[in-house]
Amino acid sequence: MPAEYKLIYHAGIPGRGEFARLFFEATGTPYEDTALTVGQDGVKPLFDGSFEHSDKNPLPFAPPALQHGEVVISQTPNILLYLATHIVSPIDLEAGGEEGEPASKKTKASPLSVDDPALFHALGFTLTILDLNNETHDSHHPVAVSDYYENQKDEAIRRATDFRKNRVPKFFKHFEDNLQRNSKGAFLLDSGASFADLALFQVVDGLKFAFPKLLAKLEPQYPKLFELYKTVKDAPRIKAYLESDRRQKYSMGIFRHYEELDEQD
Amino acid sequence: MPAEYKLIYHAGIPGRGEFARLFFEATGTPYEDTALTVGQDGVKPLFDGSFEHSDKNPLPFAPPALQHGEVVISQTPNILLYLATHIVSPIDLEAGGEEGEPASKKTKASPLSVDDPALFHALGFTLTILDLNNETHDSHHPVAVSDYYENQKDEAIRRATDFRKNRVPKFFKHFEDNLQRNSKGAFLLDSGASFADLALFQVVDGLKFAFPKLLAKLEPQYPKLFELYKTVKDAPRIKAYLESDRRQKYSMGIFRHYEELDEQD
Repeated sequence: MPAEYKLIYHAGIPGRGEFARLFFEATGTPYEDTALTVGQDGVKPLFDGSFEHSDKNPLPFAPPALQHGEVVISQTPNILLYLATHIVSPIDLEAGGEEGEPASKKTKASPLSVDDPALFHALGFTLTILDLNNETHDSHHPVAVSDYYENQKDEAIRRATDFRKNRVPKFFKHFEDNLQRNSKGAFLLDSGASFADLALFQVVDGLKFAFPKLLAKLEPQYPKLFELYKTVKDAPRIKAYLESDRRQKYSMGIFRHYEELDEQD
Repeated sequence: MPAEYKLIYHAGIPGRGEFARLFFEATGTPYEDTALTVGQDGVKPLFDGSFEHSDKNPLPFAPPALQHGEVVISQTPNILLYLATHIVSPIDLEAGGEEGEPASKKTKASPLSVDDPALFHALGFTLTILDLNNETHDSHHPVAVSDYYENQKDEAIRRATDFRKNRVPKFFKHFEDNLQRNSKGAFLLDSGASFADLALFQVVDGLKFAFPKLLAKLEPQYPKLFELYKTVKDAPRIKAYLESDRRQKYSMGIFRHYEELDEQD
């Protein structure tokens, strides 16, 4: 039986598809990932308009796209909103671990409703996290997304300097401040784990790959943020996923490691 | 009686607050706009955490924020999603015009439900439109958002060249292709006007201010897109808004006019 959900995304990088993958994995929801089942050709139908049910859905601007029944939608925050309002299983950061553990690391309700402010709070955080994701991309491509890094390296060095000095600390402070003021303080929402925490894990993880020296320097200043990172990383379902072949490696996508863009000694 | 909805945003520019304002205006929904009622001090409580009901809501990363009852949320797409799922009056691009006109330029349903793919189609388009909005900002600030334009002018000239040659045409083609394949072809969604059309009007309008020569050159190539622009601009409620003091002028925000960044003769 084919999986109910299909993620259509580029092969060979975690990229923007990763935010949806982590949602599927944390909720234990079966999904087809065309990056693995089809490879890079899997995104072609999005560009030539031949994707399934294209008569009922707009042409996407870019991958990722999500197919669920006859519905095909694109744009990462939109896909996460769709999953948050449709997937019945909760995000569960304890499932798959030792028997008898308390289920305190679960979302409070699932699927989320538009009558629950938690949906908008989680989406608000996620949009900010995705802004940081985009700015990370632009730190190595400040002039032209379609041109080579080597042709905009001087500009990238200038932009990455501002990114390290001003932008990453501004975003991290926002997450840390919000975690510190929660009464429980473990997740971005006081009510429990949400897709925003998964997204925050992903962007911190990517930044650790791209800017290892910067992240090592910042870690002691944002204790709650890095504690949350570790909580998600060590959650049994996420841990199993990260160790599996389903998790693709960072390479030449959003998160790239160029020594000259990282903190200098 | 105070308005049910309060928009909290910087004074003196349309900016990202404009997408919410157009939603209020097109639906005839009363709202308070702190840019007009308070001025620039209106955003201060967002930064120092003293905003109303701050105990029940996260600290925002940046304006705009929306307050509705005890709910305060931020991030433009999130605010539009909230309005789309809560405002009961339809987006009506004929209301306020001559008596007896047919109501064909209305949204099909209002508020939109997460069970209706139209919500995700409209939000998907809107996220792409807001990506173009962000790229417009970065065309004059490619290195550092917090630094002066004059200190990144050389990089801006390089980035704006790519923006004019590759990015704007790519986005415009996406909107035109989708408008062309609709059976009715007047709005982004076949089912009728949506908040995505309002957002598309706004970004085209801002681009006409910032890059007048480029837009004059592109207009004949994207007939459906510019027809939609005109339909929204001439809608009675929108026309009245644009001519009112409530519509703030473009100046030094996202949309700025620098001759050296526009198409050269």
